[in-house]
Amino acid sequence: MPRTIVTGDPAQSLVEIVRINGGHDREPGSDAVAVEEPLEIRLGLSEHGRVRHQAVSVTMRTPGNDFELAAGFLFTEGIIQRPDQVAGIKHCGGKNNPTNTVRLDLLDGVTVDIKRLERNFYTTSSCGVCGKTSLEALATGARKIDARGSFKVAADLIETLAGKLREQQHTFKSTGGLHAAALFAGGGELLGVREDVGRHNAVDKLIGSRFLAGELPAHEAVLFLSGRASFELLQKAVMGGIPIVCAVGAPSSLAIAAAREFGVTLLGFVRDQRFNIYAGEERLAYA
Amino acid sequence: MPRTIVTGDPAQSLVEIVRINGGHDREPGSDAVAVEEPLEIRLGLSEHGRVRHQAVSVTMRTPGNDFELAAGFLFTEGIIQRPDQVAGIKHCGGKNNPTNTVRLDLLDGVTVDIKRLERNFYTTSSCGVCGKTSLEALATGARKIDARGSFKVAADLIETLAGKLREQQHTFKSTGGLHAAALFAGGGELLGVREDVGRHNAVDKLIGSRFLAGELPAHEAVLFLSGRASFELLQKAVMGGIPIVCAVGAPSSLAIAAAREFGVTLLGFVRDQRFNIYAGEERLAYA
Repeated sequence: MPRTIVTGDPAQSLVEIVRINGGHDREPGSDAVAVEEPLEIRLGLSEHGRVRHQAVSVTMRTPGNDFELAAGFLFTEGIIQRPDQVAGIKHCGGKNNPTNTVRLDLLDGVTVDIKRLERNFYTTSSCGVCGKTSLEALATGARKIDARGSFKVAADLIETLAGKLREQQHTFKSTGGLHAAALFAGGGELLGVREDVGRHNAVDKLIGSRFLAGELPAHEAVLFLSGRASFELLQKAVMGGIPIVCAVGAPSSLAIAAAREFGVTLLGFVRDQRFNIYAGEERLAYA
Repeated sequence: MPRTIVTGDPAQSLVEIVRINGGHDREPGSDAVAVEEPLEIRLGLSEHGRVRHQAVSVTMRTPGNDFELAAGFLFTEGIIQRPDQVAGIKHCGGKNNPTNTVRLDLLDGVTVDIKRLERNFYTTSSCGVCGKTSLEALATGARKIDARGSFKVAADLIETLAGKLREQQHTFKSTGGLHAAALFAGGGELLGVREDVGRHNAVDKLIGSRFLAGELPAHEAVLFLSGRASFELLQKAVMGGIPIVCAVGAPSSLAIAAAREFGVTLLGFVRDQRFNIYAGEERLAYA
């Protein structure tokens, strides 16, 4: 079996491979690959000093920024609302895998609706599930983003953001295997970027970093996604109060519906000096 | 709010958009987008004529091939093993959304281990979760694929498969928004192709179609993925007994570990007349 060499960066590792060119040119070598490992997210609940720990999710993620990932996941799923509910976050795995379990402890007396997570997954409604029920579930935890505000971004600035994101995709450059999510200010300044094998994790890490810094809702920011825009990613943007979402790839029908319902500006195929507006053109300024 | 026009194909819909070119050239028009809608998968269990229905999962998917998706999901998660356990599959949603719920009914007396699904998500192991526990969980439902068999594929044929897949990505061509998974025979003949907004769904639909046709394990087939190869996708290939997995994009560290552990040949970056071998070179034949 080929040997696996782990480098200093927990997000990538080197593996021995064979490169094949033109069907026969065979060259053994090594390749940097994106690390994928499970992360169990646990919640520590405390009432009158009685502490209870509960596993809420396991996600396959790229190691790094695990505290942000846990906070961003719990916030965008509507389980926690404010950083002042959080007593602390720590890794709490066993001796062999200390960093693959993370626990977010709530302050004594803070109660949460954990059933909310299950409700997102299992409906018992007699009319069954559909895009409308997904939008309704989102509406119980999120508010429509006001489109009358003065926050606008120049259309010709949008076209420069894909290039700025690409410059920041450090692990993608080595591995070709990571999604990225970035937050930009209205003038195009980069506020933060996160990478992960899972596109939802990249967004959770990014939103989690703003959550922990007390900088949500991000009413004057642009979320930029390196891939496609699905409903789940729009949901996270809405929870974070982010008014503009740009994706290098295509949006899905339900992502567009969520953007239109919740007042988000959604731009797709943002590359090669062009893009499509799927919702919320009022936030774009033309030169 | 722009009007949404639904076409005859349930996998795509037309939406009104605005195209922006060079920062100011503004052209209203319409765009075909990939449909994303939730599908609730239910299981019908029957013992001595007493019937019980249980929701097991909700996945965001592109409508179409829902029965294959349900069967493929339940099979690759290790809940069902053989098509002769299945009494029938039908849509069972309410009047408003008849096709967003699907129920797979098992024959009377067939018992399944539904807790298996939860175990995949929540561990209570004191040593926590890690890549090793993910591989161990897979080992309880899957067998290593024998590498000594005579099934080999020519390296120069592998390089032609990306083009063959692209020709078959009908909805991707219109929307740019779908992942695809295809199964090829050793001589390069296309056995099947499925598309979905979720890469795991595309693979579930494809494997589900073979499951329902009684054509698993697919010990002489090549699975070709339009995107990246994650652990989850390798897991599904292993469950289906598929010995060769090719991906247009990068594999993750845990996908490579799963391929090496379970005897799968894993090829990545299969494009532009070249590819990388991450595991199982013994199944490649050179001219």
